[in-house]
Amino acid sequence: MVSASAAAASPNNQGDAQALFAERLTTIAKDTERLLDRLLASQPADGETARPARLLEAMRYASLGSGKRFRPFLVVESASLFDVPRQGALMCAAALECIHCYSLAHDDLPAMDDDNLRRGQPTVHKKFDEATAILAGDALLTIAFDILANEETSSNPSVRIALVSALARASGLGGMVGGQLLDLAAEGRFADAPKPMGEADVLTLQAMKTGALIRFGCCAGAILADVHDERYAALERYGTVLGQAFQIADDLLDVEGDAATVGKQTGKDAAAGKATIVDLLGVANARARLAALVAEAAEALSIFGAKSSVLAAAAKFVAERKA
Amino acid sequence: MVSASAAAASPNNQGDAQALFAERLTTIAKDTERLLDRLLASQPADGETARPARLLEAMRYASLGSGKRFRPFLVVESASLFDVPRQGALMCAAALECIHCYSLAHDDLPAMDDDNLRRGQPTVHKKFDEATAILAGDALLTIAFDILANEETSSNPSVRIALVSALARASGLGGMVGGQLLDLAAEGRFADAPKPMGEADVLTLQAMKTGALIRFGCCAGAILADVHDERYAALERYGTVLGQAFQIADDLLDVEGDAATVGKQTGKDAAAGKATIVDLLGVANARARLAALVAEAAEALSIFGAKSSVLAAAAKFVAERKA
Repeated sequence: MVSASAAAASPNNQGDAQALFAERLTTIAKDTERLLDRLLASQPADGETARPARLLEAMRYASLGSGKRFRPFLVVESASLFDVPRQGALMCAAALECIHCYSLAHDDLPAMDDDNLRRGQPTVHKKFDEATAILAGDALLTIAFDILANEETSSNPSVRIALVSALARASGLGGMVGGQLLDLAAEGRFADAPKPMGEADVLTLQAMKTGALIRFGCCAGAILADVHDERYAALERYGTVLGQAFQIADDLLDVEGDAATVGKQTGKDAAAGKATIVDLLGVANARARLAALVAEAAEALSIFGAKSSVLAAAAKFVAERKA
Repeated sequence: MVSASAAAASPNNQGDAQALFAERLTTIAKDTERLLDRLLASQPADGETARPARLLEAMRYASLGSGKRFRPFLVVESASLFDVPRQGALMCAAALECIHCYSLAHDDLPAMDDDNLRRGQPTVHKKFDEATAILAGDALLTIAFDILANEETSSNPSVRIALVSALARASGLGGMVGGQLLDLAAEGRFADAPKPMGEADVLTLQAMKTGALIRFGCCAGAILADVHDERYAALERYGTVLGQAFQIADDLLDVEGDAATVGKQTGKDAAAGKATIVDLLGVANARARLAALVAEAAEALSIFGAKSSVLAAAAKFVAERKA
């Protein structure tokens, strides 16, 4: 069976695919926002005692009202390849976004990147205070797993537990959090002087810090569909190269962007002396690498045929984004 | 079927029960330590990229080598009431301990309680640095859910997902983290001046901050056994009163203890002006309340007969502990 959304995702040309991508991204962002708004309501869930107003307000500030919702988009679109019920995909998308938003709140803390501005707004610890930002991050991280455990995510408990396991590994010690530690080490933040980074080191750091959540978002559709064959592997490959493309584009923006467009402080990586692919290859070669990754993303998706054109357009969007 | 451990838990008198409790606590602490040591090994799990040495070292520092492992004890002993396989109970115990240890690492941060000493040792941010302590806490919180999702915890995915849901709610916004926020608010840490706290406010704060994890530990046995009848309710009641007893005992220690015995800074609550049950009732009445809670704990357990004598002894231990 081909779902209505998948059938609609067969555009005549690349321009149509880009327009469809933009439309889907907007729709999924709105739907994710609405769902997060409900999940972060003041009424306590079963098994909760109360939801303290200040903490809830900080969690909502950290997660609602802005953000492209690119990771939720990946979950919903990868799920639509398998005709997974949309509500389940949105729940998984909301969980992933909670992890992403908690990581930003903690990353911005004075003891971490010490940022005052995020998406053009005061960071959580600037709007509230450091303790509240730490706790709001902890609570967003925790509620992500509560959301995945909810029956609304999937009627199949095995699917829900597979999502918990995959998201925990993508976001923890051996994934995103580990990548954040490597990132600080690369900036020379610890007693040991940072070692010069080769391309393999940079790729590992980035595969963990930003790649792991993107890869999870791409694989989530297959996990939700309980599919573990070559289609899972195709999405994993797509997610891996998409993550690399995302990071190179980000590093190019860091070199070439200005704070007004990007909405956050730029030029920080160069100041810290940390290596990126752009540093190692130079801008021109990094752009060529980016184009190759976009092509590889499309190739990885070919197993899904025209259904996957919106995901292929997403890779192009990532490569070409200006903010 | 009565398991060997449950049969052994039928002592002749209270003295025997206390001795047996001490023995079980020691054994479970060792088994939990051994399991955490394995779960926090350097080899990445499937789906992880790498485990950065510094982060792993900080996670191990925060979770290994000390601690009474009282929460793991509750999980293993409540599970033994239902003859749940011990390895599954230990996995759940390890997950709960990861949550407990992460909360201590974050609680000790300069922006939170700003403690330099924990269990007589430098706190995580003193031993490492603030950023590493934040990330180690995040990673311990995350791996807790990875552990629950592991097949070793239960062969039944529905049981594993029920544990994820219950632990997330006990430890997040509407549980422990929410309680930490209320605790800081009670200390006057935010812009709004703290409101005078009545007994109900204090009980809510404590039911969240320390009670929720203890209650989860007590209910975990029933969840592992997939039991949702009056035995679950009995363990929930036991866990609730045990948590209250634990907190009153802690508050009495805070008033009467000294730093050498307790192994952390004492007298802090009085300095902050935050209300406790001891403040509201006075020491003598608080001691009477504590005795009544121990009796209620034993009564809640009566449904399990002699099998539960070690859990009843645990309530007495909590009430009488000196550190």
